[in-house]
Amino acid sequence: MRAVVRRNRQLVCDEIAELEPAEGQVLVRTLACGICGSDLHALHHMEHMIALTRRAGGPDNGFDPAADTVFGHEFCAEILDHGPGSAKALKAGTRVVSVPVTLTAGGMEALGFSNRLPGGFAERMLLSEALVLAVPNGLATEQAALTEPFAVGLHAVAKARIDENSICLVVGCGPVGLAVIAALKAQGRGPVIAADFSPRRRAAAEKLGADIVVDPAKESPHDRWEGLGVPKARAAQQMVRMTGGGFGRPVIFECVGAPGVVQALIEASPAGAQIVVAGVCMETDRIEPSIAITKEIELTFVFGYTPEEFAKTLHHIAEAEIDVSGLVTGRVGLDGVAGAFTALADPEAHVKILVEPGA
Amino acid sequence: MRAVVRRNRQLVCDEIAELEPAEGQVLVRTLACGICGSDLHALHHMEHMIALTRRAGGPDNGFDPAADTVFGHEFCAEILDHGPGSAKALKAGTRVVSVPVTLTAGGMEALGFSNRLPGGFAERMLLSEALVLAVPNGLATEQAALTEPFAVGLHAVAKARIDENSICLVVGCGPVGLAVIAALKAQGRGPVIAADFSPRRRAAAEKLGADIVVDPAKESPHDRWEGLGVPKARAAQQMVRMTGGGFGRPVIFECVGAPGVVQALIEASPAGAQIVVAGVCMETDRIEPSIAITKEIELTFVFGYTPEEFAKTLHHIAEAEIDVSGLVTGRVGLDGVAGAFTALADPEAHVKILVEPGA
Repeated sequence: MRAVVRRNRQLVCDEIAELEPAEGQVLVRTLACGICGSDLHALHHMEHMIALTRRAGGPDNGFDPAADTVFGHEFCAEILDHGPGSAKALKAGTRVVSVPVTLTAGGMEALGFSNRLPGGFAERMLLSEALVLAVPNGLATEQAALTEPFAVGLHAVAKARIDENSICLVVGCGPVGLAVIAALKAQGRGPVIAADFSPRRRAAAEKLGADIVVDPAKESPHDRWEGLGVPKARAAQQMVRMTGGGFGRPVIFECVGAPGVVQALIEASPAGAQIVVAGVCMETDRIEPSIAITKEIELTFVFGYTPEEFAKTLHHIAEAEIDVSGLVTGRVGLDGVAGAFTALADPEAHVKILVEPGA
Repeated sequence: MRAVVRRNRQLVCDEIAELEPAEGQVLVRTLACGICGSDLHALHHMEHMIALTRRAGGPDNGFDPAADTVFGHEFCAEILDHGPGSAKALKAGTRVVSVPVTLTAGGMEALGFSNRLPGGFAERMLLSEALVLAVPNGLATEQAALTEPFAVGLHAVAKARIDENSICLVVGCGPVGLAVIAALKAQGRGPVIAADFSPRRRAAAEKLGADIVVDPAKESPHDRWEGLGVPKARAAQQMVRMTGGGFGRPVIFECVGAPGVVQALIEASPAGAQIVVAGVCMETDRIEPSIAITKEIELTFVFGYTPEEFAKTLHHIAEAEIDVSGLVTGRVGLDGVAGAFTALADPEAHVKILVEPGA
């Protein structure tokens, strides 16, 4: 079957071995699979990524970054066949999504970051029958394929300690930031301030329900705190509280993932802020601990989601609690994947590109 | 009156102006005042400290680090006289402690870091009558003077999100780490692991109730997690939970305050750990955000204490819930302060030195 293979730090279309579902697995046809920022990074820096994952004690099942890999972990697929002994609770033809993990006799494979099993940039995949979720009736394939990136947002919000009166600021409105905004609004939180340099991303933030959308080139989003009743300095905050006033914990979501952003937020945020770090910065970063101490900042690093959060996100999307329409700004076949990786370097060009291996 | 003055980055004994209590103030005689690690740092690096405080939006009431300063913010004192209009609820002769802040007509002065009012390395001070707390009957002056540093520990513990089954690790057993251990044990928490290179500090940690005391030169304190039922890798943790097992959130108190320690803890701690950063690192520090993300680490930077925590600490000490006996390892008069600063550079030489200006 055909797939886009990462080989020698390039993406090439090639034939790869056909797949046979083992016990507990289903063979699926990939309908659509989003390109993630981590794919863009992994194309050139996989070795560094894996080294960092290993330092973090993350499981990788012996993954060799120098060997062939088929990316793709944000997919919607259709069941073609079941492994031996299956009760076939979901019949062939059922559209499904899944957390991108497949259990095999040899261990757990992370789809999209495995040498043994292909991710969604292949015509077919092997999924674990116990992990697949049927796409609810009527939900478009392209929207179901957004379950994975939006689950990341739900998880980040679940890790935030948001008060009844908290004001949330989302810094960076790429796919992660948009998913955070969507999860906040699905929970009825507000006001939500969103900041991004890109007009296209600001428009997407507004469509997903951000209450205040700021262009950081024109004004600092942090200039909004005081007007919303959140003093920035600790002494001023104490004064408000001493005189019977109150305000919720300021919660900031870092969804950029570039060096220097965390320290800029430590410096600009109100005292007592929780900074939820959802943007994945793969480089060494610098902070000024004494400033974080004086302001009593909390840095909450978050990653992934639970299977429950993934399922909840699918239903949020299916029930239109999260309106993901309009976020897919490009579609390519396998031949177009390499070009799409290049196009995604420009934040103005796209929000999300889907790969349709059958197209 | 006599005081130790910081002048040209040196400590000199000199005569300074007599004090007159204004309305709302009391004039006190300083009985004892501890030397704090921040004093040692400020002697040489006050300009940098103040620049960082200003970047953090901290109030300093126009403090000029180049002008004369009298250090000392961990004191026990005796009331000599009251300002005009006082109801004199606490009579002259009463021993008192106070959060090291004095309200003046010109604003709030941080005792020990003020050009206008002396701290505890002076024969007399001006305190705010509303903030002083009488030392409970019978509590020794030298123990009451430890209220301030031990309040720092109580605050750090209050900011930790400790589960019923949490295991706590205290890294660094200088005065801050010891105060954290004491606060944990006063709340009945355990097991508490304590780590320090210094035998003297390890002995102090044990005396304050640490359950496991480790010399990091011989073994990593992180080797203890698994044996206490806390798997370090996220996948192993998930497996324990999937099979019905459980363990509390790992909570680590960083009480060293040197560059590199936070990253070492990010790397060595179990996934999901909360690292409460109580050690004050005044230098730029480096972290690997991607490792913190993969492990979902939380960095909680903490500072100071509330007046309620200060009062609670005084009562913990007075009621022997915290046994601070033996922690004062040196006593000097004003003439001996400069030498004591030098002696404290060796962690083996002392735990806490008290300055007794009347001696």
